[in-house]
Amino acid sequence: MNTLVNGQAGAYITVRDRGFAYGDGVFRTLKCEAGRLLAWPRHYAKLLADCAVLGIRCPAESVLLADLAQLAPENATVKLTVSRGLSARGYACDPDADSTRIVQTGILPTYPTNLHTVGVQVRLCDWPLSIQPGLAGVKHLNRLDQVMARREWTDPAIFDGLMCNTRAEVVEGVMTNLYLLKEGVLYTHPLADCGVAGVMRNLVLEAGVDLGFKTAQQPFTVKALVEADAVLLSNSLAGVVPVAQCGAHQWHNFDAAQRLHAAVVKQSIMESTLCRAA
Amino acid sequence: MNTLVNGQAGAYITVRDRGFAYGDGVFRTLKCEAGRLLAWPRHYAKLLADCAVLGIRCPAESVLLADLAQLAPENATVKLTVSRGLSARGYACDPDADSTRIVQTGILPTYPTNLHTVGVQVRLCDWPLSIQPGLAGVKHLNRLDQVMARREWTDPAIFDGLMCNTRAEVVEGVMTNLYLLKEGVLYTHPLADCGVAGVMRNLVLEAGVDLGFKTAQQPFTVKALVEADAVLLSNSLAGVVPVAQCGAHQWHNFDAAQRLHAAVVKQSIMESTLCRAA
Repeated sequence: MNTLVNGQAGAYITVRDRGFAYGDGVFRTLKCEAGRLLAWPRHYAKLLADCAVLGIRCPAESVLLADLAQLAPENATVKLTVSRGLSARGYACDPDADSTRIVQTGILPTYPTNLHTVGVQVRLCDWPLSIQPGLAGVKHLNRLDQVMARREWTDPAIFDGLMCNTRAEVVEGVMTNLYLLKEGVLYTHPLADCGVAGVMRNLVLEAGVDLGFKTAQQPFTVKALVEADAVLLSNSLAGVVPVAQCGAHQWHNFDAAQRLHAAVVKQSIMESTLCRAA
Repeated sequence: MNTLVNGQAGAYITVRDRGFAYGDGVFRTLKCEAGRLLAWPRHYAKLLADCAVLGIRCPAESVLLADLAQLAPENATVKLTVSRGLSARGYACDPDADSTRIVQTGILPTYPTNLHTVGVQVRLCDWPLSIQPGLAGVKHLNRLDQVMARREWTDPAIFDGLMCNTRAEVVEGVMTNLYLLKEGVLYTHPLADCGVAGVMRNLVLEAGVDLGFKTAQQPFTVKALVEADAVLLSNSLAGVVPVAQCGAHQWHNFDAAQRLHAAVVKQSIMESTLCRAA
């Protein structure tokens, strides 16, 4: 990966950075395609919103775009991290401290070419998502729930693991948002007290309406998952991916996923920003 | 602070370290007094246990003691951090990767000299502790709950903030464990699905039995807190501290806290390890 820390080349931060000491920060992962940052305005708006929840100073959009112009990725995974910056030992933070910004670019994940036509295999994770209304939806650096869930499998055939919260609602994948299609309604968890509300999730919900689905943000159980007409995943790197199998259960209806994928890819490109020095 | 990263002088880690990316690690804070690491065997045992919960390779005790001998603190706060080490982007971890160990020494906090005789003022925090049975008790690097709670006050007269979990049980302080004394029984939260089980907490519970208290690990509410005969806090730097005030409520019985403090200080010294090269 190519990395800038506060605009300077180099991949090192001090251990006093609160991102390391407490996971006190937020991050974003997005796709750069043909030198364009897909859905950039949404990603920056989400970074700004997540920083606001934690009370962290978000770098200006122009500053991040200047960093990205310096790295000048062509086709790449882009990761942006903003931590609360330095502090003395202890939880109290200095309200005047500058945040730390890290911009990384690296290779895109290599997905099977038939990802969207044959679907993927997922599993149900045992590790529950914790309930925390104050942090729900925020993509912060406290990601032990995802780390622990991801440790449950090593089989490379498994694309992602589905996570339930401590109330036994199926919330999301370890690295994706999750949707059910049932009788023309596209369901996804409301993420009111747990989970990460990805940028792609909003694009999917908007595209769903455009394509004539009803959309409903409401919790559902494993039973509803198993009985769904189709199950879909999304994130900013893979787009919308149909689920073909979870344990013994199989789904064969990939049409909605494919139409949603095409729509969100198109919209992400329409809302993209050129990653070049002006 | 003086810092060693994997035994080498310097305070920098790569942003690819999973401690920074995900808060994927654990830490300990302990006291070094007159060149002795107080309650060292308990701190190392707790570090080992916390690493085991996360599946992180814990450095050997001899390795950490060699690091500490290199820094040779006299009277100091010692912080030990172990992260899962490096990984590529993504939650999956390399089971063969080495963990990262960080040993820091710095000045001790300056408490008022009458801390144990006049007690401290605390407040009730609004931010709830999230419920996560799999991580309960572990002092991991996902500390946003504590960061957010600590942001609720700036008044230096407030020693600590008390945190309830999402079930409205009073669990602990932001940086301390919490106890109630009521009719000769010393109550503390069981920490079965939230909270941090500090080394000092075990010392307090043991000393409590020795001093003739009954001890009970069971949840309690704000009402029980207010009606307690005495309220106490503990951590490895301050020992046992009596609470004199929380909002409008006051407590005047500091005898139990003082006796417990004397007992845990004595025991911590008895169980201390010399922080010197052999």
